[in-house]
Amino acid sequence: MILTVTLNTALDITYQVPRLRAHTTHRVTEVTERPGGKGLNVARVLAALGHRTVVTGFAGGVTGTVLRERLAELGGGVTDALVPIAGTTRRTVGVVDADSGDSTQLNEPGPIVTTPEWSAFLGSYAELLREASAVALCGSLPPGVPVGTYARLIREARVAGVPTLLDTSGEPLRRGIAARPDIVKPNADELAGLTGSTEPLRAARDARRRGARAVAASLGADGMLAVTPEGTWRAAPPHRLVGNPTGAGDSAVAGLLSGLVEGVPWPDRLARAVALSAAAVRAPVAGEFDRVTYEELLGRVEVTESPAA
Amino acid sequence: MILTVTLNTALDITYQVPRLRAHTTHRVTEVTERPGGKGLNVARVLAALGHRTVVTGFAGGVTGTVLRERLAELGGGVTDALVPIAGTTRRTVGVVDADSGDSTQLNEPGPIVTTPEWSAFLGSYAELLREASAVALCGSLPPGVPVGTYARLIREARVAGVPTLLDTSGEPLRRGIAARPDIVKPNADELAGLTGSTEPLRAARDARRRGARAVAASLGADGMLAVTPEGTWRAAPPHRLVGNPTGAGDSAVAGLLSGLVEGVPWPDRLARAVALSAAAVRAPVAGEFDRVTYEELLGRVEVTESPAA
Repeated sequence: MILTVTLNTALDITYQVPRLRAHTTHRVTEVTERPGGKGLNVARVLAALGHRTVVTGFAGGVTGTVLRERLAELGGGVTDALVPIAGTTRRTVGVVDADSGDSTQLNEPGPIVTTPEWSAFLGSYAELLREASAVALCGSLPPGVPVGTYARLIREARVAGVPTLLDTSGEPLRRGIAARPDIVKPNADELAGLTGSTEPLRAARDARRRGARAVAASLGADGMLAVTPEGTWRAAPPHRLVGNPTGAGDSAVAGLLSGLVEGVPWPDRLARAVALSAAAVRAPVAGEFDRVTYEELLGRVEVTESPAA
Repeated sequence: MILTVTLNTALDITYQVPRLRAHTTHRVTEVTERPGGKGLNVARVLAALGHRTVVTGFAGGVTGTVLRERLAELGGGVTDALVPIAGTTRRTVGVVDADSGDSTQLNEPGPIVTTPEWSAFLGSYAELLREASAVALCGSLPPGVPVGTYARLIREARVAGVPTLLDTSGEPLRRGIAARPDIVKPNADELAGLTGSTEPLRAARDARRRGARAVAASLGADGMLAVTPEGTWRAAPPHRLVGNPTGAGDSAVAGLLSGLVEGVPWPDRLARAVALSAAAVRAPVAGEFDRVTYEELLGRVEVTESPAA
């Protein structure tokens, strides 16, 4: 199975409003609630691709209960191995304007994780690694979890012989990358934040030098760039797709990880990641993709090899 | 005891952010959750004034459970007689800018109330009226509750010999007022919406003609205006107070209702309502007031009688 780790899960609440105007009062016209956090979205896409998937991380309080209920309701072959905590799982509130589709995001910081809870997670993580063919480490860290946590989880996976993909930002990314994950999947902003370079190829090469075995950077509508031991490739969708970009990055992670587990060569892995990412843009919510779009695009993603540096 | 009815209770969530900017992402720095809905706030102020108070209305789902737990934790002599429903109590999200204190409000519409739940409420309401010395009918109606509901509850209270105060807006106010409540407490906007007149005295007189026995309009920092069978008065605080206006109207309702139950003459009732309202501005959250401010202001509210029309 493939394991995804989401230490800062969230109950994602979406509010539809006619148009958000700061410092005024709004009647919300529609409310939806979904289990959230990058790793949960990655797991759902992996399961839709036919992979047995287990999610771990933390869940607690009333929002944690609702999150687990919603995850179970969604079904789709994702096994819930979230570790219970006394604190309350955070909410995120996304306010979507009906006319433009523009979104305003409010993210709660997340619960405090206690030392015994953290130990319980580490024990569970070690157990789950025994069964795992790959592990994705996704998203931000909740308060109280050490900033070097992803580095630790990457080292433990390597000891267990399990390849890792890291998808985070800021200091957790910087620290994690130094522990030599097999793949990091930053977006252009995260890559620039890490390396100081806004030129993706230069930044991706820099990120490899910092410890990542391979860097697969998502470049929004331009597709992806991968700098790997096997070569350097760019992959672009045949045309731009209009829709909801939320979850596109998570779909790309699922594409990369499924390709890794299946032993697919890098150019095909990238094509899969780009096609899934574009198909996610055509789905209304994160963690889902439009299968028809995916299958249509898969053979039409243009992958070009770049010369070595 | 005094009964307050809040058909559309809410779990009030407050998010502190540095500054809300539409269509961007925000990290919430502080989250608070409180039991909300006008009638709950009125009840808490009444209880703080020494009145036995019972709250009714609806509560359901996980947010309803949290709301009732929070209400019990607050203590203070408010008895919970909320009727359970299968639907989920709505949330309101208030986003407060740290620098300016400006607030952006997002109000969920509220749960559907089924016919059997509505019948259960009516049965409970009839029981509670037997013990009540007054009833306050507060706030918006949840979806599925007939727009003429306040009119019905006012008529039932009159049959039971219990005086009523109505604090709502829009069509529920228009319909409710026709059922001849003892007091309506609109603000200037609600009064203008009802009567089409932005001149408060004219609008309040019009509202009386529409059926209200007395109209006590809150005019923000200018205090209150009451048009009653005993006379017409204006009441103004000695100076403007800076603070959080949320809940000022609910405190005014508590002042009017406690005065009614205690048989206090209208000028003193108004002074109490204005002092409580100003003292609520000095408290950080709705349903509370600053007692020192209240006691200081009570003797200093200027009440002036207007000649009859």
